[in-house]
Amino acid sequence: MEHTKSYVDTHKDRFISELLSILKIPSVSADPAFSQDMENMAEAVKNALLQAGCEQVEICETQGYPIVYGEKIIDPALPTVLVYGHYDVQPPDPLDLWDSPPFEPQIKPTGLHPEGAIFARGASDDKGQFYMHVKALELMIQNNSLPCNLKFMIEGEEEVGSESLSAFVKENREKLSNDIILISDTGMIANDVPSITTGLRGLSYVEVEVTGPNRDLHSGLYGGAVANPINILTKMIANLHDENNRISIPGFYDKVAELSTEERAEMAKAPFDLGEYKAALDIDAVYGEDGYTTNERNAIRPTLDVNGIWGGYIGEGAKTVIASKAYAKISMRLVPDQDWNEITELFTRHFEALAPDGVRVKVTPHHGGQAYVTPINHPGYQAASKAYEATFGKPPVPQRGGGSIPIVSLFEAELQSKTILMGFGLDSDAIHSPNEHFGIWNYLKGIETIPYFYKYFTELVG
Amino acid sequence: MEHTKSYVDTHKDRFISELLSILKIPSVSADPAFSQDMENMAEAVKNALLQAGCEQVEICETQGYPIVYGEKIIDPALPTVLVYGHYDVQPPDPLDLWDSPPFEPQIKPTGLHPEGAIFARGASDDKGQFYMHVKALELMIQNNSLPCNLKFMIEGEEEVGSESLSAFVKENREKLSNDIILISDTGMIANDVPSITTGLRGLSYVEVEVTGPNRDLHSGLYGGAVANPINILTKMIANLHDENNRISIPGFYDKVAELSTEERAEMAKAPFDLGEYKAALDIDAVYGEDGYTTNERNAIRPTLDVNGIWGGYIGEGAKTVIASKAYAKISMRLVPDQDWNEITELFTRHFEALAPDGVRVKVTPHHGGQAYVTPINHPGYQAASKAYEATFGKPPVPQRGGGSIPIVSLFEAELQSKTILMGFGLDSDAIHSPNEHFGIWNYLKGIETIPYFYKYFTELVG
Repeated sequence: MEHTKSYVDTHKDRFISELLSILKIPSVSADPAFSQDMENMAEAVKNALLQAGCEQVEICETQGYPIVYGEKIIDPALPTVLVYGHYDVQPPDPLDLWDSPPFEPQIKPTGLHPEGAIFARGASDDKGQFYMHVKALELMIQNNSLPCNLKFMIEGEEEVGSESLSAFVKENREKLSNDIILISDTGMIANDVPSITTGLRGLSYVEVEVTGPNRDLHSGLYGGAVANPINILTKMIANLHDENNRISIPGFYDKVAELSTEERAEMAKAPFDLGEYKAALDIDAVYGEDGYTTNERNAIRPTLDVNGIWGGYIGEGAKTVIASKAYAKISMRLVPDQDWNEITELFTRHFEALAPDGVRVKVTPHHGGQAYVTPINHPGYQAASKAYEATFGKPPVPQRGGGSIPIVSLFEAELQSKTILMGFGLDSDAIHSPNEHFGIWNYLKGIETIPYFYKYFTELVG
Repeated sequence: MEHTKSYVDTHKDRFISELLSILKIPSVSADPAFSQDMENMAEAVKNALLQAGCEQVEICETQGYPIVYGEKIIDPALPTVLVYGHYDVQPPDPLDLWDSPPFEPQIKPTGLHPEGAIFARGASDDKGQFYMHVKALELMIQNNSLPCNLKFMIEGEEEVGSESLSAFVKENREKLSNDIILISDTGMIANDVPSITTGLRGLSYVEVEVTGPNRDLHSGLYGGAVANPINILTKMIANLHDENNRISIPGFYDKVAELSTEERAEMAKAPFDLGEYKAALDIDAVYGEDGYTTNERNAIRPTLDVNGIWGGYIGEGAKTVIASKAYAKISMRLVPDQDWNEITELFTRHFEALAPDGVRVKVTPHHGGQAYVTPINHPGYQAASKAYEATFGKPPVPQRGGGSIPIVSLFEAELQSKTILMGFGLDSDAIHSPNEHFGIWNYLKGIETIPYFYKYFTELVG
């Protein structure tokens, strides 16, 4: 398949400029202010699929933002692969920490990306990664090398819980039927250490509100005499972990699947340098659950993090006030076999129980999803492994990911198919952070590798 | 002094409309956006003093906002009273909790103010209360009843620490020399239970910053493996109180002046209904240091309250981020004989010590002031007591206030004179809160009472 590499080389400048153009659209799903940009982005995805050679391309309206669907069926007898991706992005704030505007893509070399990286919100998560699949389709059609049927489903609510998607999947099982699902929305260890994510953590995301007095109070007149909602909230959050940094919610660990010593030893083989890790984050020490390594803490262990907190006076200068309300956004990463609905309930019950007299507490579940694991003996994994070997010259390392793609377990439940997570970004690409970027080399390598997956998968199951 | 009451009755409509006009100026000292309004407000104060009959009125420039000074010297041999007040106000946020715009004064009756109250930011704190003195001067000049010399010093930085004022006082000891200082910036128990604040709490106000990783991180990729600055901050703040709600900063209570059983018994005589207190705040329980009553907790005991906290994603929807930084504004109310500089140091040392490896902590002192007490046998208090008796028909109850007016102790140190805190507002007037208001009855009663203070004070010390 030499033509694959040569096609990428011939068209790489256009592949890059096409990606830059969709990165300019601020498709932030969390903020209604960007709803028009979301519509524009769905339009852009539709056109990109048509241009690549998809058929039956449609913008499917939902309760929320539309899902873009397209397919290329060459022979119903052949295997069918469903490609999933999302065109929405995380909010770009804090804006002042970006070196260049988040929606004005810039190409700059970095230490890990000497050939240059594209800096923009969504460059890696997930516009750059789903667009690799669009270009891979174009490549196979132009080269007459598409070996199987393809379906594309690109949604616009991944960063806010994929609510409309679940309904869409349940209502379109037939249309979406497939033999394997392919997603590029994860990372790999390094450009010379390809890896495939075989497990994902689940998620439970909640918002909490603590209400004390019915109005803001003067801290001189009332200070010390009434429960201060902010002080109480900090106490309640602090109580969610014990002295060993284990989560203290009763029942939280009951269903956690513990890995065997062998599995942990296997995981420990993945290259990891704690010194580099700390240096990259500019921290003097790591921090987490006693008895587990850093790689275990962020992959096979559940966690609880406050993602946002606010209350009282946060403007310039000083205001001596006791706020009436304090708020926090809290997310828990879950592992097999924790059930996110059950965990959300356990959290809610425990958090309400933590509230002392003098305050009222409200817990609002935002969204969640189940953890997921792909066995490495699955033909989908085998095909992916051979594809990487063909383009990277070495097989990928199977890796448990710390992130969550809740819909992966939804797919398994509704469509009865496994998902292969072929991610080409790096953990250091700052997704969800200021200065998110995606390596040019990674982008092109992805476009080059994906066609091999189709080839080997069709050979294995066809 | 019958003419006093009749003058107030004759001119009350004008007294009210004049106050409304200065309440329309958004003189928020904490926010630079309002600097022009601050200048306009200083102008308005200058004109009000001139109109009332002050001489040598000047707008004294400072490093910060100007101080308005004016005087009426009738005979150097007579006693001199220095009236202090402030023309700046607290920030009005949260705006959405105001029933009417904070800088568009409205007059509405309330349960405690059947004759109507003026709703506006600064209505009570402190525009309404310092303006009573301006009108009392006008009254005495028009009636030829001014018995002593008067000096006015109205500043614009009380709500942000009175930094420029301290310098001004130190540089103008001669100009500001006086026999007693009069301030109306406190409250009284009830319209039928007049009281005078004989003690104030000190204050130490700090801002803390906790820094973890050098950038915001994806909570899936890093969650559980690095110290989350928000989780750490909540833990550190929670650790500032022990299980008895005592402040756990080493040495914090060392210099606290404990009241005798007799003094506490005397305090306990002030009318107080816990049921009404809780109902007014819509709370099911009070909360505070074990072993003390509500009135003791907010007057004779030191406290620590978080006035604001922020970090991470606080916008709409959900963002799975681990913030690089988390912040809080924290204030401590102090009692005799705690030294605010020493307490600020103790806090800083302790807070830094609470920080675990993996984060860096910065503590920035904002401002502070010492606690203060006026003995009730002081001629200034005696004169005030007789003045209240003349207009309220009963002597005032001496009361320890929970608030802080740091400059009161500065005055004592620099000008060697005591301060009398003749406040006419009510604790329920919501100062520093949405819907701040000041009773019309209280405003007029203040204007009527103040002249009696000058009369009796001159008789006692003249």
